Amino acid sequence: MIYFESDYNNGAHPMVIEHLVRTNDEITQTYGFDSYSQTAKEKIKQACNCPDAQVFFLTGGTQTNATVIDGMLQSYEAVVTVETGHISIHEAGAVEASGHKVIALKDHDGKLLAADLRAYMDWFVNDESTEHLAQPGMVYISFPTELGTLYSANEIADIHQVCQDFGLHFFIDGARMGYGLAASTDITLPWLCQHCDVFYIGGTKVGALCGEAVVFTHQNVPKHFFTIIKRHGALLAKGRLTGVQFDALFSDNLYLRISRHAIDMAMRLKEMLKNKGYQLYIDSPTNQQFVVIPNKKVKTLEKKVCFTHWGPYDQDNMICRFVTSWATTDADLDALKKAL
Amino acid sequence: MIYFESDYNNGAHPMVIEHLVRTNDEITQTYGFDSYSQTAKEKIKQACNCPDAQVFFLTGGTQTNATVIDGMLQSYEAVVTVETGHISIHEAGAVEASGHKVIALKDHDGKLLAADLRAYMDWFVNDESTEHLAQPGMVYISFPTELGTLYSANEIADIHQVCQDFGLHFFIDGARMGYGLAASTDITLPWLCQHCDVFYIGGTKVGALCGEAVVFTHQNVPKHFFTIIKRHGALLAKGRLTGVQFDALFSDNLYLRISRHAIDMAMRLKEMLKNKGYQLYIDSPTNQQFVVIPNKKVKTLEKKVCFTHWGPYDQDNMICRFVTSWATTDADLDALKKAL
Amino acid sequence: MIYFESDYNNGAHPMVIEHLVRTNDEITQTYGFDSYSQTAKEKIKQACNCPDAQVFFLTGGTQTNATVIDGMLQSYEAVVTVETGHISIHEAGAVEASGHKVIALKDHDGKLLAADLRAYMDWFVNDESTEHLAQPGMVYISFPTELGTLYSANEIADIHQVCQDFGLHFFIDGARMGYGLAASTDITLPWLCQHCDVFYIGGTKVGALCGEAVVFTHQNVPKHFFTIIKRHGALLAKGRLTGVQFDALFSDNLYLRISRHAIDMAMRLKEMLKNKGYQLYIDSPTNQQFVVIPNKKVKTLEKKVCFTHWGPYDQDNMICRFVTSWATTDADLDALKKAL
Amino acid sequence: MIYFESDYNNGAHPMVIEHLVRTNDEITQTYGFDSYSQTAKEKIKQACNCPDAQVFFLTGGTQTNATVIDGMLQSYEAVVTVETGHISIHEAGAVEASGHKVIALKDHDGKLLAADLRAYMDWFVNDESTEHLAQPGMVYISFPTELGTLYSANEIADIHQVCQDFGLHFFIDGARMGYGLAASTDITLPWLCQHCDVFYIGGTKVGALCGEAVVFTHQNVPKHFFTIIKRHGALLAKGRLTGVQFDALFSDNLYLRISRHAIDMAMRLKEMLKNKGYQLYIDSPTNQQFVVIPNKKVKTLEKKVCFTHWGPYDQDNMICRFVTSWATTDADLDALKKAL
Repeated sequence: MIYFESDYNNGAHPMVIEHLVRTNDEITQTYGFDSYSQTAKEKIKQACNCPDAQVFFLTGGTQTNATVIDGMLQSYEAVVTVETGHISIHEAGAVEASGHKVIALKDHDGKLLAADLRAYMDWFVNDESTEHLAQPGMVYISFPTELGTLYSANEIADIHQVCQDFGLHFFIDGARMGYGLAASTDITLPWLCQHCDVFYIGGTKVGALCGEAVVFTHQNVPKHFFTIIKRHGALLAKGRLTGVQFDALFSDNLYLRISRHAIDMAMRLKEMLKNKGYQLYIDSPTNQQFVVIPNKKVKTLEKKVCFTHWGPYDQDNMICRFVTSWATTDADLDALKKAL
Repeated sequence: MIYFESDYNNGAHPMVIEHLVRTNDEITQTYGFDSYSQTAKEKIKQACNCPDAQVFFLTGGTQTNATVIDGMLQSYEAVVTVETGHISIHEAGAVEASGHKVIALKDHDGKLLAADLRAYMDWFVNDESTEHLAQPGMVYISFPTELGTLYSANEIADIHQVCQDFGLHFFIDGARMGYGLAASTDITLPWLCQHCDVFYIGGTKVGALCGEAVVFTHQNVPKHFFTIIKRHGALLAKGRLTGVQFDALFSDNLYLRISRHAIDMAMRLKEMLKNKGYQLYIDSPTNQQFVVIPNKKVKTLEKKVCFTHWGPYDQDNMICRFVTSWATTDADLDALKKAL
Repeated sequence: MIYFESDYNNGAHPMVIEHLVRTNDEITQTYGFDSYSQTAKEKIKQACNCPDAQVFFLTGGTQTNATVIDGMLQSYEAVVTVETGHISIHEAGAVEASGHKVIALKDHDGKLLAADLRAYMDWFVNDESTEHLAQPGMVYISFPTELGTLYSANEIADIHQVCQDFGLHFFIDGARMGYGLAASTDITLPWLCQHCDVFYIGGTKVGALCGEAVVFTHQNVPKHFFTIIKRHGALLAKGRLTGVQFDALFSDNLYLRISRHAIDMAMRLKEMLKNKGYQLYIDSPTNQQFVVIPNKKVKTLEKKVCFTHWGPYDQDNMICRFVTSWATTDADLDALKKAL
Repeated sequence: MIYFESDYNNGAHPMVIEHLVRTNDEITQTYGFDSYSQTAKEKIKQACNCPDAQVFFLTGGTQTNATVIDGMLQSYEAVVTVETGHISIHEAGAVEASGHKVIALKDHDGKLLAADLRAYMDWFVNDESTEHLAQPGMVYISFPTELGTLYSANEIADIHQVCQDFGLHFFIDGARMGYGLAASTDITLPWLCQHCDVFYIGGTKVGALCGEAVVFTHQNVPKHFFTIIKRHGALLAKGRLTGVQFDALFSDNLYLRISRHAIDMAMRLKEMLKNKGYQLYIDSPTNQQFVVIPNKKVKTLEKKVCFTHWGPYDQDNMICRFVTSWATTDADLDALKKAL
């Protein structure tokens, strides 16, 4: 079987698992006060070139979204996103479980347009009845988006401006941050730190066994965030588990290097699909590729290749998702080529 | 000033306030166990021709929606409605405050189409990933809708069928139930009891000072619903307050009689607007009329008439809402006619 | 039957119901923006001699507690009270329903001791592990307490001091505020305004059909409290219902006058019980009297008198609660005297 | 430094980390559908001798408690425990965050007495007012308790009987299950499966980097528990992380073997403390030992030994906690002996 199903079918990157092994016998502080967590936080702050950053490690994406959103919002506040936003759909109502409404604006290939956000907020602050509504308190976007697309620096800066104009927190879901950074031509971690309030650097999909590094960008971590994490069931007793992994990922530029490999593989994959005559469902520059495949072909293909049925394209064709990762090999692509 | 702003600008209907006065000196049981609450419940069951009905009184619409939805859903379940649904927008996130996601499908002039619901549920039960989503557990519609439109009996029966096919509770918000029944040609309380799991009969907008009568239609009240009401801060110590009012409203057919008057007034209003050359924004058979008025005219009109700015129609025109109620008089309409 | 069961068996005080009738035909603004609500708020601010006060009307006690506590606390904060506190027990978990823990310290005849609170907070701020705990954010007491007892001015001032020392909000549940004020020798509304952050003036148990007036004492109402009220299902469309009632209660000193009557009746009742040789379970200066009655006597007495079984005192005796109110008459007491 | 601070200062047991390394290069299913998770579940069911068991892996103790409790309770239900229960205090209000009250009965050296529970429930079902209270839906105990004490089989069976008599779920927190089983003379996993509804087998404190195995004992897993886990932010994308670790822990009886070692070390420690003349604060048969140490001695001791200040014993003495684990060595004990 050849795997293009997701970017979390593999274990950890070898350098990550080795670091876990190397440090395993040490006795450390608990709850994230161990030296590896501390070092990893420093390395991330350096990679962000942001001394004012405050870094916390959580375990997975949904947990991180729910904890950060609940931590930054007042009880009566809602988070604004797009209809394709991960928190809108695929998180089992985890944001609502903390009492917060998710307001979903129309997406444009997975992206939120600053102009749509501004129009919504203009209406909100001018309409007479909006004290009867959940109050927008935060904007959430994903970089890259759930459809593999990427915001340009200008697009994010524009959203950031709207957020500042209306006093909204701006939060960027970076479950696939590495792949976004590797594919982007104008966005870096230091740039991001200047253009949002909080984001996270996904580990689970980029070489770790688990772990997301939340970065508050300007000393703006919510008061008692440690307690908030615990209240969400998200505090690891052995915080070293995530600390050690991020310590490895942020040594020798590992995080970006393995992300770039995934993007190289994705671009080869995309070229291959186009050469084989398949229609791209969306033009994605990142490690998720969406392609239209005839239903009959899907049936034969999935005997050899593991990929995701995204949904029907029309009666005869299906939208399929192929995902590369740091672990994808040339051999995988060659095998896929044969199978296509 | 002439008032067409809402159907809750007035006090109680004279018969309702009189009943409150008449019973005021009596000593009664508390928490809804008083004789007036009991009698009112019996009268409602009779009006519904539904011996299996279970009736509870709550204070207002948002409270009723939040309490019923939370009472009937499991923690991980969501409620499905349309984008214009009151719970989608105008309830300050009260449903989400209890942890439940509101899933909003496209509306058609404020209505949910059974076909849309079926398509959504077909997708939901067949898609591989939906265990990662909030689970739809209930369908919520409003009768009449937030845009004044009305479902036909067939339309509701079709939605009911989808709910039964997929094991969803079916809940009808009747904040303006009286006006809906008075305007409908084919829907009655007994018919409703056969075609949904729970609905409520709005009092606040139809002659009471406060109060909504929730009707569970087939002995299906959630276990410990009394405790659930209390937990939602919705239990009146002097339950007689709502009991007495509904006792009056369901005596001598008062509820339907005053509702019909409001519909008569609304139809005269609608005719008047059309005769004056105004474009209806929506063709509403009920007590809410939406009409397009030039911005300039709005400015002069609102010096004499109180109505609601619903939103901009285009740059030069505004959608305005005019509402009649049991208290609207011919004199009000005559005065409006002059002002238009 | 003679009623000493509770202080909410009656309808409204005659002056209150008359005011509802007198104003019933007027057309008013909705959601508490009517002139009666505005006037009532001004009257309450004057009675409090507190121009910085901000007043809101809610419907009942549990609703008020849940809304105020949730409105003032951050998500991760808890409210500290005593084991007999109403929010600890008799509110069906309404505070927890908004995600807040109730921390219950030992009570002393229903009262919280400032010294106990200080000891708890001293421990809390010094213990190493308390970032793992819900963070105390508010202190809640009842005046009078659930056992009918009263705090002295000194006792409340001491609690207030602890709250200020540790940055805790201080909230006083005044479901029976009138009876407390009438019985107290040293506490008045203006004094209360100087010694807590927020309290409420109970209407439901003191002459209204429903309604509690929340007083934030120093321009400290939580941001978007209107939205918070709506989110809790606690916003009345016809806000006039509570506004008109409090307008009556705070005219001509009605609220305090009728409260004093209840205390006079309670003191006669207490004397009567002592003269008959019954043991008081607690020495209460307010309108709730707790007395120990032999089980056999309970059985015969409850054929003529309605009162509450509070719980077993020992195998042969029961603690019974007798409650007076603004509506209790000399005739009621005479009849009880005969029955005892 | 010698570490007796907690049982989670170390990394994973060598066999556990080795299994993670050995399996790291494999491509597996996600979200717990990998073969290692499946195998681990089978091994646990076999260790429990319980074919009807249903096993789920979560990450940590607070997360597990919050998820299981919320999953099994209705919204209006509370969980009953003791005042020293972990969920009562040390979980930052995580149970309340899902809307559930924690009802805390008096503990007896950390244990819940069946008689106390029965008395509480007898009162609850007979009292007239309890529909106004959060409804007890579950009993939670810890094995071993937070104070290191152990229930006997009879004590647990008695609690189980009360739960069955009153229709309460019975949940056992096994964060230190291995140490409890190793220290107990009459309780085994198969026995536990017959005497509660759900329990968990702690991995984090017994050899894993993270992970708790929840065991529903009689095909009683809540509907959509997968969705419930996701909604709590507790679903690992790489479920293999916990699956592989439990696969190792339940091979060759590793879990019990390493637990027994910790108990052996704890008994040596206890003997040593007693021989040195220290007073035990509590007589614990498990890996947590509580001892009274003069404040002065604490100051000198903590320069060499890491342990926990549990709280003041009196003005001059402190209660200190020493914890052994699978990783404690004879050398650690020898070094401690010198330092004492």
